[in-house]
Amino acid sequence: MYPVLVSLDPPPGKGWNWALELVKKLKDKVWGFKVGWPLIIEGKENLEKIDSRIVLDLKLADIGYTMRNVISRLRGDAVIAHAFVGYQTALEILREETAKRDMELYLVVSMSHRGSKEFIDRHVKEFIKLAYLVADGVVAPATRLDVLRLVRRYWPKTIISPGIGAQGAPPCSALRAGANLEIVGRALTRSDDPLGFLESYYAQCS
Amino acid sequence: MYPVLVSLDPPPGKGWNWALELVKKLKDKVWGFKVGWPLIIEGKENLEKIDSRIVLDLKLADIGYTMRNVISRLRGDAVIAHAFVGYQTALEILREETAKRDMELYLVVSMSHRGSKEFIDRHVKEFIKLAYLVADGVVAPATRLDVLRLVRRYWPKTIISPGIGAQGAPPCSALRAGANLEIVGRALTRSDDPLGFLESYYAQCS
Repeated sequence: MYPVLVSLDPPPGKGWNWALELVKKLKDKVWGFKVGWPLIIEGKENLEKIDSRIVLDLKLADIGYTMRNVISRLRGDAVIAHAFVGYQTALEILREETAKRDMELYLVVSMSHRGSKEFIDRHVKEFIKLAYLVADGVVAPATRLDVLRLVRRYWPKTIISPGIGAQGAPPCSALRAGANLEIVGRALTRSDDPLGFLESYYAQCS
Repeated sequence: MYPVLVSLDPPPGKGWNWALELVKKLKDKVWGFKVGWPLIIEGKENLEKIDSRIVLDLKLADIGYTMRNVISRLRGDAVIAHAFVGYQTALEILREETAKRDMELYLVVSMSHRGSKEFIDRHVKEFIKLAYLVADGVVAPATRLDVLRLVRRYWPKTIISPGIGAQGAPPCSALRAGANLEIVGRALTRSDDPLGFLESYYAQCS
């Protein structure tokens, strides 16, 4: 099994048929699937049909009451929330709810796009400190390996890493910098041969 | 018409029937309705049935590509995103898309919960600067009027303000501190007499 979390964001005009086709093709070869809002709003009941691990990439960043209201309506093995929303009456409440539902909680401590440097990256160490209080894993980018390496130095548990492929980072680069799983989206899901894509990159990764 | 944006977050177990009943009762008396994820995931096609202004409270905080993918699948007059996610390849792309769709963009520059002080509130002035580049309005809390007044001093356009009612701020308090619209949720929507609630508070507001 490749250490890959497949991002199932459908292209414009596509939805669950597109996604479930990919799940069928890839589920025995990858760690799991990351499902975000573009797919969820096309029919959350289809989450049941993903017979693999599901990470709900909701990028939650709301008051605790609302985040709890959201995840109580969805099915998944883990959920992604933003660290920047803070602990008090926000992540502390989300943590209670994820624990109750036996979901894992992953916190975004840095992002893959350039704008992450404007505010988020100024708090990476503080976000990791917060992650110790509430999170099972963190999200840190493959597009800035210096940040990813810093996160690896301070955070002993799971790191999942977006930015591979369409966003510029080559496959395996995040794993080599310390990530546990690489999040791969468009480069894989829009490839004519997704299995071939995985084999050609991840067989030679370690 | 009262300067109120009604937050349509349904209680656990409730969904669109609950929401559309409230819209029917209140639409002639309020400025519009704020719809968030808890309702949207119960069936986005129902957004068509809200015959009033709709503010999509998505608290978007993702890379530009994904935020564009989300809003291209939804209908609304305005959308709320986080300033925290930054401009480059995030809000700059969202702004392009909202302009194309004739949607307004509101940026969160401070939030109503206590955790907002941990990270977000350290950037309020920078967020307002960013709002000048991309936003039609900003979101600032009724629960901390010092912050709201500061935002009013630096931001000349629309301010919408959450935190009224269940979160502790009394009706009219945000308007008096400079907000253009108060966001009211549970205190109004779970009242036995929502119209009476509005009349008793907002008739004496100014």
